[in-house]
Amino acid sequence: MDLSSPVLPATLLEQTALRLGCSPTDRKLAVQLDEEDELKHLRECFCIPKVKDLPPTDLSLVNGEESCVYFAGNSLGLQPRKVKTYLDEELDKWARTGVHGHFNGRRPWALADECIVDLMAQLVGAQRQEVALMNGLTVNLHLQMYAVESQLRLHGLDVEKSMLMLQPRQGEETLRTEDILAVIEKEGDSIAVILFSGVQYYTGQLFDIPRITKAGHKKGCLVGFDLAHAVGNVELHLHDWGVDFACWCSYKVFSQTTMKALRRKSILLTGYLEYLIRHYYSEDKTNPEKPFVKIITPSQIEERGCQLTLSFSLPIKSVFKELEKRGVACDMREPNALRVAPVPLYNSFHDVHRFIEILGSAIASSKQTANNTALSGSY
Amino acid sequence: MDLSSPVLPATLLEQTALRLGCSPTDRKLAVQLDEEDELKHLRECFCIPKVKDLPPTDLSLVNGEESCVYFAGNSLGLQPRKVKTYLDEELDKWARTGVHGHFNGRRPWALADECIVDLMAQLVGAQRQEVALMNGLTVNLHLQMYAVESQLRLHGLDVEKSMLMLQPRQGEETLRTEDILAVIEKEGDSIAVILFSGVQYYTGQLFDIPRITKAGHKKGCLVGFDLAHAVGNVELHLHDWGVDFACWCSYKVFSQTTMKALRRKSILLTGYLEYLIRHYYSEDKTNPEKPFVKIITPSQIEERGCQLTLSFSLPIKSVFKELEKRGVACDMREPNALRVAPVPLYNSFHDVHRFIEILGSAIASSKQTANNTALSGSY
Ligand SMILES: Cc1ncc(COP(=O)(O)O)c(C=O)c1O
Ligand SMILES: Cc1ncc(COP(=O)(O)O)c(C=O)c1O
Repeated sequence: MDLSSPVLPATLLEQTALRLGCSPTDRKLAVQLDEEDELKHLRECFCIPKVKDLPPTDLSLVNGEESCVYFAGNSLGLQPRKVKTYLDEELDKWARTGVHGHFNGRRPWALADECIVDLMAQLVGAQRQEVALMNGLTVNLHLQMYAVESQLRLHGLDVEKSMLMLQPRQGEETLRTEDILAVIEKEGDSIAVILFSGVQYYTGQLFDIPRITKAGHKKGCLVGFDLAHAVGNVELHLHDWGVDFACWCSYKVFSQTTMKALRRKSILLTGYLEYLIRHYYSEDKTNPEKPFVKIITPSQIEERGCQLTLSFSLPIKSVFKELEKRGVACDMREPNALRVAPVPLYNSFHDVHRFIEILGSAIASSKQTANNTALSGSY
Repeated sequence: MDLSSPVLPATLLEQTALRLGCSPTDRKLAVQLDEEDELKHLRECFCIPKVKDLPPTDLSLVNGEESCVYFAGNSLGLQPRKVKTYLDEELDKWARTGVHGHFNGRRPWALADECIVDLMAQLVGAQRQEVALMNGLTVNLHLQMYAVESQLRLHGLDVEKSMLMLQPRQGEETLRTEDILAVIEKEGDSIAVILFSGVQYYTGQLFDIPRITKAGHKKGCLVGFDLAHAVGNVELHLHDWGVDFACWCSYKVFSQTTMKALRRKSILLTGYLEYLIRHYYSEDKTNPEKPFVKIITPSQIEERGCQLTLSFSLPIKSVFKELEKRGVACDMREPNALRVAPVPLYNSFHDVHRFIEILGSAIASSKQTANNTALSGSY
């Protein structure tokens, strides 16, 4: 199975199912895809929580001994097994040498950033001297925003009025690249700094970083990106693209493989999730009773990372709660988004298949509750 | 031995020695002071490095199995034994529940600051709602400085010219409170913000925070402090003193006792160190050959914390190196300061006595080297 080919995930899934003589929805397909997954060994490098250990689990509904379906890796990833070893090494150094740890040992604390700056530079496609590791992302984002706002004020401008915020078109959920480029073309001469996210945290949309950067530069703007959800998720070439500045979360990163290989698996894994959701939960106008799921994230592979953002025809809080009771870790965002992120480092095709099964009973249970509420409301 | 009395450390030391029938320089005094130390049990709560584990140690000069003399607690304190237990608990939570750790367990990460905000507020004498725990100190200091500088620029002022920096008088090492107050009185009407350190990192001088704050307020200034070296070192009452803002290092802090008790021991411990240094290394104008040690830190108890800053009649790098070879951890600062900080949490009077003994051989060895160099220079 050659994933570097431009074959679409749906086509690949159907071809493989055909080869196996089963439906693309069959568990067999998941098993086969896992077997052929060249990154499957990486799962062993992480601590996968058990269903019974997740606080919201309802043990009357599921087997607590199973591994959970962990689709929250876009928020906080699972713990690499080596973390404890590394931390113990540093604690031991502190215990045995105190302040000398700053400049001694395998990872001198005062130079701690230098130990991973090469890895980091490679991950974002930058040169070593272009990358600085410092602070938490929240701090860096605020520093960035503060700099923008204080520049506006310095020039006597009103912050509210002078910050141009883009919105999707009426009735749409994500931004069109053509609209972004049109605004830059039209307003660029009066814009100093363009600040965009790489992967939008709510919708999962991946923006066209090189085109936005190029368009901004043509107008003499500085162009920067908040890459919180993009780093370690999609391939980046910040240097070649000429991006002026960017910040992201260092703790979402892991070595052991290449971004190219991760992205290849990621495209198929998320494609598989999309395929099954569409198969079971597309809207059916002829059957308005049937619950459906809408995928807010763009369907084009180039416009997304690993995350799919879902909205439901049923109350989202209920669906989320039912999923959590059954050992799924994912992430709900107001007003109406469920973020599910199968990550290629440790999530399997089997995880996706199990998620879809569990989603079935979560939706059934939510529908039941909704019906009961409607019924009791009519008394 | 009542340390809350206004008796000076020197008097107390001499009285105790008299009672023991020994000289104040006798090791017996150190032993007795440790015995009477009501905080001596706290030493057991920390990992005390062994001499052989400190990288600069020269095992031909000292017994590697002994505990080191750790006088660098003003920089990085020793590891509390409980740290490993606490970290293991959080690592375990992450391994077993992933992202659920944000809002579950004994210390939910998303609310982690709230677990110690009361302790912290108490330590600095502030009210709970006046304290926010965030970032590293370096970040907070830079945010503070950036705010000051951008305010100056906003008002069209030159940063270099508009920031008034105080300097000690010619020939003096520390600032006089009268001089600080005089500048505020004279220039206050054109000052917006007064920013001071609590304990100055180089000289160890403790400033009169309440008086400086009051003087600033009288002139309508905001008054803030960098308390990096003051918190956990001296008693603070930020709320009662009306200090407008302050920042410090959270990791220098430990509970288990009160700041009052710590300070009481600290005064005697540092007083003992000062007493012995003066006894052995005061300048003797009649004997210019004799090496001497100058204490830069003010001798008044109210004007210092635990740290003494020393300068030497011999090359400081050499003295520092010889101390380090012999299992002392302390801290050298350019151009000419050795910072030694016996901290009351885990340092003993015996540590001070051993330091003085080791200082003797470090000075002798440095003098020898200096003489040899001078000699070889004259060939
Ligand atoms: C979009 C986004 N912003 C901010 C943060 C917070 O980052 P930090 O905890 O490093 O400040 C995260 C972390 O997941 C994030 O995903
Ligand atoms: C005076 C002073 N400034 C800055 C720092 C650095 O603090 P952090 O590592 O939390 O940024 C320290 C730490 O010891 C300090 O003592």
